[in-house]
Formats: sequence, structure tokens, C-alpha cells
Amino acid sequence: MLTNDFKEIIFGRKSVKVYDEKVKISKEEMLEMLDEALTAPSSVNLQPWRFVVVDSDEAKAMLRPLVRFNTKQNDTSAAMILIFGDLQPQEYTDAIYDRAVAEGKMPKEVRDYQVAAIKPMYDQLSQAQMREVVKMDASLAAMQLMLVARAHGYDTNPMTGFDPEHMAETFGLDANRYVPVMMLSIGKAKETGFDSVRIPAEKITTFK
Amino acid sequence: MLTNDFKEIIFGRKSVKVYDEKVKISKEEMLEMLDEALTAPSSVNLQPWRFVVVDSDEAKAMLRPLVRFNTKQNDTSAAMILIFGDLQPQEYTDAIYDRAVAEGKMPKEVRDYQVAAIKPMYDQLSQAQMREVVKMDASLAAMQLMLVARAHGYDTNPMTGFDPEHMAETFGLDANRYVPVMMLSIGKAKETGFDSVRIPAEKITTFK
Repeated sequence: MLTNDFKEIIFGRKSVKVYDEKVKISKEEMLEMLDEALTAPSSVNLQPWRFVVVDSDEAKAMLRPLVRFNTKQNDTSAAMILIFGDLQPQEYTDAIYDRAVAEGKMPKEVRDYQVAAIKPMYDQLSQAQMREVVKMDASLAAMQLMLVARAHGYDTNPMTGFDPEHMAETFGLDANRYVPVMMLSIGKAKETGFDSVRIPAEKITTFK
Repeated sequence: MLTNDFKEIIFGRKSVKVYDEKVKISKEEMLEMLDEALTAPSSVNLQPWRFVVVDSDEAKAMLRPLVRFNTKQNDTSAAMILIFGDLQPQEYTDAIYDRAVAEGKMPKEVRDYQVAAIKPMYDQLSQAQMREVVKMDASLAAMQLMLVARAHGYDTNPMTGFDPEHMAETFGLDANRYVPVMMLSIGKAKETGFDSVRIPAEKITTFK
């Protein structure tokens, strides 16, 4: 990481739309950033986030017609990170919970109880409910990824302006299983992002 | 803030379920933490997150039957922060975009173009689509709130295990407009949280 200054990382984050095209990000650093971001929590720790990192010229050309008005980000960023939600994350339950036991992070009885509860719970969720779960969980990871990127000296732009119908299949994923949640451009900022305004917390918060 | 150490904040975060009951959080500090967290991005900056901070004994007693197996957090935390999504955030479009112009952060022409585009776009979204949008946006803010809490010396536990049907009306909100997204317990940790495992990024990422 280039900086460890939390205030600078979080308060300095703005959506950056134009990047230095000469700056690429190695596969190793990209995976390092993702692993750092994936410390985010998720519903019953099923981690339904999945990623496609679009960083070759060929893949960016395939993505270009799907990104609507966000072509500048696609054209200039080091990569476009496509974040999908897996609508069948319960397939990973055993692998995740067995490893927690193997690493001494969870007693076997807790694992057995949890695994027995999670599978039927997830199996009975509707498609609409699952979409909401994976969009929430993937958004938690996406927010950490935007901050981790800044710690590494990069900036991002989170976007939902894309063609959701063709994202999965264009990049070889089963569109019935993988829902596009968000895409992030990432790279070295060339133009700084705009400041933006927020509704003050006191206007949208009640104390009870 | 008590610490500005990004690595300590992000990598030290674990879900804490038992808090020091003697430690309360002032309304001023709670609003300060919320304002810091609300620097998170959101779809077309409509910021559909809304908060109910449950910190009185009376309100916690009302919340208790709704939190299912999460009673320890409700009983011992300084507060339970209920995060709702506003299904009609476009009502704030003028207020937000006018202020951006007034503060010199957006040219008037950009404001006019955006405001004209956002309202019809949001008006034609289905209820299911709006639920997904507000759950994503509110999750981005929730993630920053968990991190900001740690910078202030507190810990949190994000939870979706609650009765979604009765959250809004129990706290005086219109259930047709405000969707419960997540609740966070917050307070001074009494017992440390458990370590947990993650699927390595390389197993769930493809490069294209």
C-alpha cells in the first residue's frame, strides 16, 4: 500500500472518470487488492461476490458497447472490474465452513449447526430475494475495494450504467446464475473527480 | 477519530456481538460518524439511505422481538443503527443538485441535464428494481460506517437477521416507502469477534 492514512483514503475518494492510459495494474497487485477488499462481511459469510477483471484491449472492446455513457472510463482505465453476484452461493457453504474449522476459527459444533441451517434457508429464498442478498453483499466488498484502491494509489468510479442483460454471457458466465451488480473503473487518475454534496445525517436520521 | 490507521481499521474489523453496556455514544458523535460514512457514493448521488438510531432502553425493548437470534447485540450495544432504503429518493433530486450548483461543484447546465434525466428514469423503475438500487446504495454507506466506527474506537456487527415486515412501522416509518436494509450494532467491544475465512480472490476472479 502507498498510503495508510484513513482520512485521506475515505474523504479524498471521488469518482474519477479519466485515467492515465499508460498505467497498467499487474495481475498480482489486482488480486492483492481484491483479497484486501474481500475482508468485507457478507450474509452468513457466503461471499457471493465474483469478479471479471477486464484489462485487455480485446475484452475492453467487447465491454465498450455495454457501458452506455461510461466509455471514457472504459477507454482510459487500467481495468474495468465487473462485480457479479452468485445466485447460488450456498454451494460454497461446506468449503467455507470446513476451512473455518480446519483453521481453528470455528468449533465443529457451530459449523454443523450453521451449515445445516444455511442451506435450507438459502434454498427457499425466491430469485428476487437472492438478487437483493447478493447485491447487498457485493456492494459491501465493492466499497472496500474503492478504498483499498486508494491505499494503493489508484482511483475508481463505481457505475451501474451498463447493459445488465448482456454482461454475464459476454464474459462467459451463466446469466441465470451470475447477476451483474456494479462495475468499477480503476487506474491512475488523470483528471481529478468532482466534489459532490451530501444530505446532512441529521436530516435523514431519527433517534429513538 | 481515535485512529487513522487504515490497515488496522479495515483488517482488524470483526463482527462484535457483546459490548460494554456502560459505554454510550453521544448524539453528536453518532451524527459525526454518519456524516463521515455518508461520503460513500450512490446511484446518481440520490443517497437513498435513511437511519433510525435505537439507543434508548424503551426503543431497544421495542426492537428486541424483531431481532430474532441477535438479542445479545441489542441488549449490550450502545445503539442499534437501523438502515433503511427510501424507495422514493428522487424527491430529493432538486435539493441535492441545486446545492451542488450553489456550492460551485456542478455547472448549472449539467444539473439541468441530470435532473431532467434522473426523475423519469427513477419514476419508471419497478418496485423490485428500486429495492435493489436502495439496498446496494445503503450497503455502500453501511460498509463505510463500519470502518468509521472503528476509527472512532467502536466495533459493529452487520445483521440482516430481523423481522423485515415490522421494522419500519415499529419506528414510525411508512413501510411502503422505507425498506429495511441492514442493522448494525455499535459500541465498545467487550468480547472480541471471531476470525473468519474468505475464499481467495484468485478462485473467484477471471482476467479477460
